[in-house]
Order: sequence, then C-alpha cells, then structure tokens
Amino acid sequence: MQYEILEKINSPADLKQLPAGQLNKLALEITDYITKSVSLTGGHLASNLGVVDLTIAMHSVFDFQKDRLLWDVGHQCYAHKILTGRRELFKKLRQKDGLSGFPNPAESVYDQFAVGHAGSSIPTALGLALGAQKLGTNEKIVVFVGDASIVNGANFEALNNLGLAKRQMLIIMNDNSMAIDATQGAIAKFLSKVRLSHTYEDLRKTTNRILEHMPMFGKKMEDALENFKRTLRMAISPSRLFESLNIPYFGPVDGHDIGSLIEIFKAMSHLETPAILHVYTKKGKGFTPADDDPTRFHSTGPFKLNGDAAKTITTRKIFTDCFSDSIVELAEENKKITAITAAMSDGTGLAKFRKRFPDRYYDVGIAESAAVDIAAGQAKLGLKPFVCIYSTFLQRSFDQIFQEVSLQKLGVVFCIDRAGLVGSDGPTHHGLMDIGFLRMMPNIVLVAPANGIELKAALKFAAASDISVAIRYPKDYVEDELCREAFSQPFETGRSIIIRQGTTKLAVVAYGSMSIEALRAAEILKAENIDITVINARFAKPADGKIISMLEQGFSIITVEDHSTACGFGSAVLEAASAAGADCSKITVLGIGDEFVPADSRAGQLDTCGISAQKIAETIKNVIKVK
Amino acid sequence: MQYEILEKINSPADLKQLPAGQLNKLALEITDYITKSVSLTGGHLASNLGVVDLTIAMHSVFDFQKDRLLWDVGHQCYAHKILTGRRELFKKLRQKDGLSGFPNPAESVYDQFAVGHAGSSIPTALGLALGAQKLGTNEKIVVFVGDASIVNGANFEALNNLGLAKRQMLIIMNDNSMAIDATQGAIAKFLSKVRLSHTYEDLRKTTNRILEHMPMFGKKMEDALENFKRTLRMAISPSRLFESLNIPYFGPVDGHDIGSLIEIFKAMSHLETPAILHVYTKKGKGFTPADDDPTRFHSTGPFKLNGDAAKTITTRKIFTDCFSDSIVELAEENKKITAITAAMSDGTGLAKFRKRFPDRYYDVGIAESAAVDIAAGQAKLGLKPFVCIYSTFLQRSFDQIFQEVSLQKLGVVFCIDRAGLVGSDGPTHHGLMDIGFLRMMPNIVLVAPANGIELKAALKFAAASDISVAIRYPKDYVEDELCREAFSQPFETGRSIIIRQGTTKLAVVAYGSMSIEALRAAEILKAENIDITVINARFAKPADGKIISMLEQGFSIITVEDHSTACGFGSAVLEAASAAGADCSKITVLGIGDEFVPADSRAGQLDTCGISAQKIAETIKNVIKVK
Repeated sequence: MQYEILEKINSPADLKQLPAGQLNKLALEITDYITKSVSLTGGHLASNLGVVDLTIAMHSVFDFQKDRLLWDVGHQCYAHKILTGRRELFKKLRQKDGLSGFPNPAESVYDQFAVGHAGSSIPTALGLALGAQKLGTNEKIVVFVGDASIVNGANFEALNNLGLAKRQMLIIMNDNSMAIDATQGAIAKFLSKVRLSHTYEDLRKTTNRILEHMPMFGKKMEDALENFKRTLRMAISPSRLFESLNIPYFGPVDGHDIGSLIEIFKAMSHLETPAILHVYTKKGKGFTPADDDPTRFHSTGPFKLNGDAAKTITTRKIFTDCFSDSIVELAEENKKITAITAAMSDGTGLAKFRKRFPDRYYDVGIAESAAVDIAAGQAKLGLKPFVCIYSTFLQRSFDQIFQEVSLQKLGVVFCIDRAGLVGSDGPTHHGLMDIGFLRMMPNIVLVAPANGIELKAALKFAAASDISVAIRYPKDYVEDELCREAFSQPFETGRSIIIRQGTTKLAVVAYGSMSIEALRAAEILKAENIDITVINARFAKPADGKIISMLEQGFSIITVEDHSTACGFGSAVLEAASAAGADCSKITVLGIGDEFVPADSRAGQLDTCGISAQKIAETIKNVIKVK
Repeated sequence: MQYEILEKINSPADLKQLPAGQLNKLALEITDYITKSVSLTGGHLASNLGVVDLTIAMHSVFDFQKDRLLWDVGHQCYAHKILTGRRELFKKLRQKDGLSGFPNPAESVYDQFAVGHAGSSIPTALGLALGAQKLGTNEKIVVFVGDASIVNGANFEALNNLGLAKRQMLIIMNDNSMAIDATQGAIAKFLSKVRLSHTYEDLRKTTNRILEHMPMFGKKMEDALENFKRTLRMAISPSRLFESLNIPYFGPVDGHDIGSLIEIFKAMSHLETPAILHVYTKKGKGFTPADDDPTRFHSTGPFKLNGDAAKTITTRKIFTDCFSDSIVELAEENKKITAITAAMSDGTGLAKFRKRFPDRYYDVGIAESAAVDIAAGQAKLGLKPFVCIYSTFLQRSFDQIFQEVSLQKLGVVFCIDRAGLVGSDGPTHHGLMDIGFLRMMPNIVLVAPANGIELKAALKFAAASDISVAIRYPKDYVEDELCREAFSQPFETGRSIIIRQGTTKLAVVAYGSMSIEALRAAEILKAENIDITVINARFAKPADGKIISMLEQGFSIITVEDHSTACGFGSAVLEAASAAGADCSKITVLGIGDEFVPADSRAGQLDTCGISAQKIAETIKNVIKVK
C-alpha cells in the first residue's frame, strides 16, 4: 500500500488540516502501516488495529500537547505514536534506541506517563484533574481505558473518588470484548450482555441522541442528563453501572465511525464534570488473521505476512513452555492443585492446564491483588493453589502476600514468570524486585530454577511444601543440555549445588538462569587458564550456609542475579555473611543497578547490566587482578 | 453492672441455649463489658459497640467452628472474641501474652485469618467458597465488612469475580456511616443518601418482606429475587449498585434488632449463591461519649470512665503531632503543597491541615493504591503532594510508587507514619518493610528523622526536593532535648551526622529514632568506661559514603534500625561496603529478624528485638569481646 495521506502527517496539526473525507483512508493506511511494521518488529497488534479510528478522532479534536491523554496499560498507543511525529521511528518499535511499545514521556510531549500496568489511567487522570482544578488551568483531560482494565481495583478506587473533580475529565471506555467467554468478571459479562442486545442501528441512534442533547450541557448538566436518559430506549444500559458511582454515562457508540466520534468528542469536551463515553470497537479490525484470532495477535513476535494466518516458528522451549507441561503433570497426580491467573492464561502458560482442568482453573481478570487472596482462601481449606503472575504485576499483590499468605503461614505457590530483564517490553515490565519484596516476609521459600529441568523439580518441590514457595524464572529459552547431570540433583530446602568444580579459590554463585551464563563465563575463562567453580544457588531464602563457609575457606565469591542488586540475592548473601562474621569484602555482587533498563533484546540487556557470560568473565578477571 | 448472663456464656454453644428474651440483656452486658475493659486497655471502641447485636445474631445462627466468618480489617471483633471463650483474656487486650485486637487464628478456631488491613475479607472468602465448592464441603461462609472497606480496590476486584462461586456466601455489609460528611467516595455518598431517605418503619417493612419471601429461595432464587424486588417500594435502593455486579442484594435492615436478624440469617443461610445483606448499625451504640464522638473513640488509648466524655491526657508530643504542625507551616509558605490521605486524617495528623487548607486536602477513603496515583498526577502538574499513609498500608501502593512515581521521576513526598514496631496493634500493623521495598526503586530518597526537630527539617528538605522523598517515623514520642544542637544540623542529601563523638573505634550508625536509643546505649556504656561514637544516618538512600570510610579507618560499626534486617538500612550499608571492597565483617546489623513480633508495648518490642538502648549496649559489649 502507498501511504499517500499518512506520509503528509507529521503531527496532529497536519491531521487537523485534512479534509474529513480523507480520514477513513488515513485509517486504512495506518492499519496497513502498523500491520506491516509489527510483522517485522513484533508487538501488540489486534488491540492497536481496533483503536486506529478512535485515535484519529481524538487527535482531530483535542490538542494533546496541551490537553492530556492518559492510556491504561498503554499497549494500544501505536496509532497515537504514528500520528505524533514518530512514524519513522515506529519501525524500530521495542528495539534498542527505538520506540517503546508503551507511552513514554521521554519520547514525546504527547505522552504523559510511562505505563505498562493496568489500572493507573483513571487515578492519575484524577490527580491531573485535581491539579488543574487547584492551579486553575483549563486543559482537557482524556482517559483511554479498555473494558478489561477499567475493573482493576486501582481504577475502581479512582472511579469511586471521581466526585473530587469538579471539572472536565473524559473517560473513553474502549469496549472490545468479543464474547462472554473471552471476558472475566461480572462487569465484563454485563457489558457483553449489553453489547449482544444492541444492533448497529441502536448505536447510530445513541450517537444522534448524544449530539442532539449536547448543546444543553454545561451548567445545566443534570437536567440535560435526565433528558438524555429518558430518550434511551434500550432494555439494559450500563448507565446504572455508573449511576451509583454518580458518573454521567454516554453511549454505547460506534468506535469506527470517525465522523460521529469527532462530533461527540467536540460536544463532550465542553462538559464541566467527569463523564464516561462507552465506545464499541473491534479488536484487530482491518487485518484478517488478527480479526480471527485476537488472542494470538494480542502480543506477538515478528510474523510472516502472507494474507493468511501467519505463524511465528520457534522450536526452542522457553521457561513458560516447561511450566505449562509441568503443572499439568503435577496436577494429574495431585488433585489438590489449582491454578489462578490474572488475565494471563496464555502468557503464563496456563492454557493447557485450563483445558485439562477447567474446574481447577481460575482467571480473575486484571486483579492481581484479589488473585492472591483467593489463593489464600483456597490454601486455608487445604488446596494447593499455584498463583501464576508475572514478576512486575505481582508487585500489585505485595500487601496480600504479606498479610494473607506470609502472616497466615499458608502454602500458596507463586509461579513468577518474566522475572528479571524482559527485553523489548522495557522498564515497566522488568521483574527486578521480587526477591527483595518477598524475602522480607517470613514463611516464604524463594527458589529460582536454572533451566527447564530445574523448573520442573522446583514446581514439584513447591507442591510438596507446607509453606509458601515463590519460584522465579525469566522470559528466556531453557538450556537443558549443558551439565544436565549436575542440574538433575534433587531439590532440598536451602541447598545449593555445585555445577562446575574449579581448581582456583574463585566461585561464581548464580541464582536461577544466571547459572547458565556463569557456566559459559567459566568456559570463556577456561580458555585463558582460569578454572573457576560455579555454584547454582537454587534458593535465595533460606540461603545455603555453604556459601558462607566457602568464604571462610578463602574463596572469593561473585554472586550473579537477574534482579536489582539492592535487596536481591547477593544482598541476602552479604547479610548472611555479616551475621556469620565472615569477610564480605571477598564478595562481589552482580545484578541490575539503580537505574531503569531500556528496551533491547534480553541478551543485550544482560550485557548492558554486566551479567552476560562475557561480562561475568571480565568481572572475574578484574577480581583476580585486585587480589 | 453485673454480668449475670454473660458469665454463663463460655462458647457460642452456651449462647444458642439462651432464651430469646435474654439476648438483648446479653447485648447490654457485653456493651458494658467492652466499654469498661477498653477504658483500661485502650482499643477500638465505637465500631465494636455498634456490632454487638449483629455479632450475637450471627453466633446464634451459624456455627463458626465449622462455618467460616471473615472480618474485614477485623477491629470490630471484640464481641466475637468475648462470645468465643475469650472473655477473661479480653482484659489483656492488645497486651503482651494477651488477646490481639484483631482476629487471630492462633488464639481461637473461631478466627480464620489474622487481618488488620482493609479489603481482604471478600477475596479470601471467595477463595474459601471456591475451595469448598471444589472439595464439596457445605460449611457456610460469612463475610462481615463495613461500608468504608467494601469499596477498597481488592474487595471490589473480588465482588467483580463473585460469579465464580456457585454456592452460599453471605456478605453482611455493616453500614454505620453517620452522615455524608464523614464518608468518602461516591458509593459512600450514595449509601448515605439511601440511609437518610429511610425511616425506621421502612427497615421494619424490608425485614418483613425478606422473611416473607425467603421460603421461596433456594433453587428458585431468581424468580424469588424478582418477586422480592417488586415489593420494594423505596425510591432509591442500593440494589442497583450490586445489580450490575450480578450480586443479589437484600436490605437495608436494622442491625440492632437481634430477633429479626436471627430470622434473616437463618433464611439467608439457605441461599445457594453469594448474596449481600445490607445492615444499618450505630457506631458506639450504648456508650454516650462514643456515640457522640465516634471518631475520637474509633481507636483509643485507656480513658477515664465517668459517664461523661472522658479524655486521655498526654502532654508529650509524638512524631505525628510534630508532623501535624510542620506540614501546616510548610504549606503556609509553599502554596503548591497538597496533602493526600487514605481514610486516616486523624491518625496521620492531617486534621489541622484539613481545617486550614480544605482545598488542598484530599481524603480518598481506604484506597491507598489510588491515593499514590492521584498524587503522581498532581506532581506531574507541578504541585507538591504529600502522601500520608502508614508504613504497613503503603504496602498497598508498592506498584503505584514504582510505576507512577519512581519511573516518572516525580516529586511526591511520602510521609510514612507508624514505620517500625507499633506496639499493641501487633504484626498486621508493624511497618517493617518500607526501607526495603522503596530502596529498590530509582529516584526516591529515603530519610528517617531521629526526633521532632529532624522531622521538621526532613519535611522541609522533602518539600524542596525535585525527586521523590520518603520520610519514615515511628509511633512514638519525640525526644527533642537530648543533643539538641547536634540534631539541629541542616539536612543535606545523603549526609549523616555525628551526634556523639567517642574515643574508641566503635560506632553505632542508627537510622531514624534509633539514634535516641543509640545515644542512651552510649550513656549506659559510658558508665562502664566504653566510649563510643554515635552517628545518625538520616539517609538510607543515598547512604553516606562516610560510613564506609570509617570501616577503612578500622572502625567496627553497629547499624541499628527499626525495620526488617533483610533489605533494610543495614543491608544497604553492607551492599555499599561490599561495592567499595570494604571489610563488612566489621559490620553488625541490628533490626527485626525473620519473624512476626506479637503485640506488646513498643518499648517491650524494641527490647525483644534487641534494639532497645539496653540491648544495643549489650551487643556492643559482645562486639568488643569478639574483637
């Protein structure tokens, strides 16, 4: 496709100059541009294609240099990026020195908050609204939030407090739920029911009604709203959902009718109160494979673009695959095992479990806090719940893990995928704090498997544990061939294993998959006649006392972890060494420093942070020099 | 008052034997018993008096040895404790080896979860319901939750997922909101409006209607519910609030009519689906001063009981008092300062600020997650928000602090009261993890003032900072006379101060109010001719490099903090020492170990944990011996 119109759009100002008749054509060009580009870079596809029309309409009305646009999660901001001067850079989406896959104020004045987690758009927007109210400024505030995110606890807390804002604040609820099956929770079901009861004709009528009644809005908001409500003829309306929250509700309207959306946005921008506009969109609109399989194309790697359903082909197994198989095996044996996820069935590898054990599988939607408490309740009755949440999102459950799991000494298993550096998703998605926030709590054992063999063993170990076990593993391929025998040693609480015996008084103590990097570092050093020992720690809590006795035996120790060095595994080793009165000056701690690591390949990030095999080897050579 | 009936009640089984005619008398006796006892021990008064009748009714119907009763927050469980065999022990409420002020499974089989934070009752109950469903057991599950807690994000997430439970689960919503003023958020306002529109006669009628229609419940739930709804004549009903969540709603009914409550509970216990019963109660019922001033008697120390409003008299200032004065002073000078709290205006010391600057004060109810995002939004516009949340409750905001504050590099100030050991509230309320979870995040400065002088200086320092500053201080009196001059040195980022210069190569490096304990320890040692140096660290991040150079100068260092030793201040010093290649074997880290510290006086807890002046002195003597 030629991008005749798109090529001329270098800012929203250019967009505002376009004749109305060209907007639909522009939408087609953007759709094509995103599809082709994402086929090369990977990224979120379906959700972005669904909101191209809406994004054009928003930028046609608002001026987001001054006005403020808040995205929830933010994975649906591609058209926004393309329209705000980042069209060329978009080709380097989620790559080193390229564009973030999420909003990023460092990239553009059009982005407000760097986000990636659900549930922040409404509370931050409320903060902006209160700020503007206090400062007496008149910028428009617009929230763009999906139906799956609006029910997150943090968003709900803000909705309940929306009355604090006595000024304009427009919440656009992008409803792309496809069917009752695909959604979680009562509100999603309710919205689906509403959706199924509507015809296209209904949407048209609602749009017209909103536009007819708009001139009356403003000071006389309340009367007008009553008037508007009276003209609603639909049997079930989400208005009652928002009425008890005292939030004026408008819609649903068609999210692909750019012309009408522009009129509605114009009219609603004059409201002097927060309001919700409910918009229907179709995930993956304009790209047949994404249309047919939006889950597959929710977040994708690069794929072959041939008009047919394209598949990315990988033969190597990642940790998630191993988890996926192992939990099903364990659950076959142990009927008490249940699995709980927060809207991440595919991402966490639970799809197979869900299929095999539908009555032991729970998806609570984007509700990580509640997910952990639900697990705690199940564990209280003697079940063995496995809570599967990415490291970064488990931060939402910190207090629940403390009060409902650790304090009660309940045996919940935490399967923490995406622990460590995650590559292209960048800073919002790295899982660099889980060791730290978990090891402050009593009654939780912390484990990290080095590969697929160990992940399986760790899960088995966790299933048999009376107290809680947290297992962290990265977004990476497993390496199950290297030193296979060593890794196959059984798991015992708090016991590390030697995976390579060296002849010098130098040992790398690696946590989790860093064991593989450490083994490779040992190979590099071997070529230079430096023969080091490599220990796979397996446990960060309780940590193996053997590590401390090695210090006493005169070893120099280099700890390596894919985690913040503050409060991490190495920090735990330092604490234990200090408590034992050992000489910690012989310990070198490698991990992620006190800064945010930008998007890149995971391998690139490991290298940047000094924990790739090559960099570990270099550090060891320096340690030797100092000695 | 004689406790003629109460004396015979040693278990709920005894209660079930009582003639119905004696239940109101029992309620009076329990009310008197609680009032007299709490006047001696301190504790939550008003909320407990309000639910005596309800508690009697619940225990008359359910058997909570088998059935499961979940309290939200749990501060309203006194009558429950008294009725479940803990009448005598209740006299030692919140004391060492006495009863916890909150539910505690270690005390009684009648308690399910040890709680103290809001928002866990519905998700844990949902977990129990799903567990019972899976295991095929038929115990009844009852949630007791207040109107202020039900809107917490975690509870909302569970309400939205209640449909997962296909069995009985009764949620009793204890609505004791007194007026629109006293409540926060749209739902609270809505409930207040409903309440004001109801007469006692309405409640009576609703009760009768529920009872009339109950025989029809069970399998034919839906028809019956429709039927019930049709008979509701009230203009506004909270039913619509719960309808979109698809949760059957009953009420409101009178929470002080024990006889009717028993009938309703009996009837509702047969429902084969989750349902909400809305109950009106009066906070502080039966005790005039609490009745008149429920805020004052929400959580109280011991007080004088003379029939009139009693006052606890304290002349010494606590950290909260100093904060209260200082923030008002700062805000007089700096118009950009705002203050945000999560339902803790009095507790955090913001009452004065609220009065002085009503338009710069925001109370968002029990919604710590949203509170931080709202602050982030305000900071984005250049305001200077001070977020005032207790350390333990700030755990709810971990992910928001990470994504919306640290990652954006925004200048939010966190005023973390109740940091460290909190005395009588026990394990759920200690704030022992804030240093750890905050110091993993870039762009946040961590400060702890030693006393009132320093708290004032720290707040001033924070107000002037471009990036975020987190200030922690304990629930304790301030000591502003000791070494007054030393403490008056100006605050500079990352600079510790010497508050006592010794002659030996021994230094205590104390964080926050532990400086005072350390000075007292130095006095104790002085008497034994041991002359140590005391350093007040002031900053945990960035930590002062001077501490590390002291190691190099041959000092032995003892770090002291009122925080978990895992990931705490001492751990940060170890990390810095290790990074500098210094000998950490000369560092001794004192703080709270890997276990939960039970209720006691704060002084008692400091001593138990080895961080009282006396215990610090003893440790130092041991350090000398080893040397």
